[in-house]
Amino acid sequence: MSLSSALLEAAVDQIATLPGIGRRTAMRLALDLLRREPQEVARFSEAIRRMREEVRYCEVCCNISDERRCAICRDPNRDATLLCVVEDIRDVIAIENTRQFKGLYHVLGGVISPMDGVGPDDLNVAQLIERVAGGEVKEVVLALGATLEGDTTAFYLNRRLAERGVLVSTIAKGISVGGDLDQADELTLGRSILDRKPYG
Amino acid sequence: MSLSSALLEAAVDQIATLPGIGRRTAMRLALDLLRREPQEVARFSEAIRRMREEVRYCEVCCNISDERRCAICRDPNRDATLLCVVEDIRDVIAIENTRQFKGLYHVLGGVISPMDGVGPDDLNVAQLIERVAGGEVKEVVLALGATLEGDTTAFYLNRRLAERGVLVSTIAKGISVGGDLDQADELTLGRSILDRKPYG
Repeated sequence: MSLSSALLEAAVDQIATLPGIGRRTAMRLALDLLRREPQEVARFSEAIRRMREEVRYCEVCCNISDERRCAICRDPNRDATLLCVVEDIRDVIAIENTRQFKGLYHVLGGVISPMDGVGPDDLNVAQLIERVAGGEVKEVVLALGATLEGDTTAFYLNRRLAERGVLVSTIAKGISVGGDLDQADELTLGRSILDRKPYG
Repeated sequence: MSLSSALLEAAVDQIATLPGIGRRTAMRLALDLLRREPQEVARFSEAIRRMREEVRYCEVCCNISDERRCAICRDPNRDATLLCVVEDIRDVIAIENTRQFKGLYHVLGGVISPMDGVGPDDLNVAQLIERVAGGEVKEVVLALGATLEGDTTAFYLNRRLAERGVLVSTIAKGISVGGDLDQADELTLGRSILDRKPYG
């Protein structure tokens, strides 16, 4: 695909670097931006630049924050003995939306993935170990995705944390609430049978 | 979804204005940008801003161009009596890739869509009529999508152009080359029977 404008080509090239966005979609998005007012596109472009340049990470939990410590870490009503380890900020939002967790978080910033060249040193693992070494934390809940990478990361963190004498738990895997058995995949259904618990 | 960072929230809001990008996808894209180097994100943001601010449109065919006239309009080997009317630059690229068209183009910049409040005055229709009024054009090929909006636009343009005494044609609709009959949808197959032509 050769374009009649080098400016358009450059923008399409950049948009196509986003995950899951191919060149055809990038072209569609670029054309949509072209139809807007220049000031509107300037605001669009500026919001992205500013986010990357000015965003900070909570010095305690590594969550994205506009201040040195995020709102969750600053909340005195949260249980500081309970720590939930998640992959990224999306997981924090998802868990917060359940209103079922009153502890604090630790955002890893990814999961261990040898295929993508991501090891423990590329994640916020050292900060986690240091936080647990502080002694206040009693339980670490590993809330990682049920994927090969998530399982690998959980395995690694459990080994590192167990030697610190802290209780390590993982969130339950099983059939969806409100879901029929025949809609669950075999692996999940099998896991939910193995992980059965006393009724009531 | 309330985020812990107003900067991130602003960027996600902007990305979610793109067509087909919901807030969940916008969040995924924003997090991907956050993982990159600031200079890389600055280049990303700058390419989009520059495209909108500096891009020009060919003064003849309304195609996107970095110069006053696009490379196709400047090419003396193209047949200036034959004009292909398309919705946007993506269609120009698609038709150029077939290497089957040696005429010039006219880019409408959209199609008539009463539902979206797009009328003839929002498109480059006046420039098309003016071009045809010049007298050099003998045939106008309407290469618009086979949608309600495309058909409406073709109907409207045919009426406007016919009174100028120019031949108006539309591209053929039918089964795909290399496609089996049972793979074509009913409307397309029906149309291909109605539009049958002498063999050979």
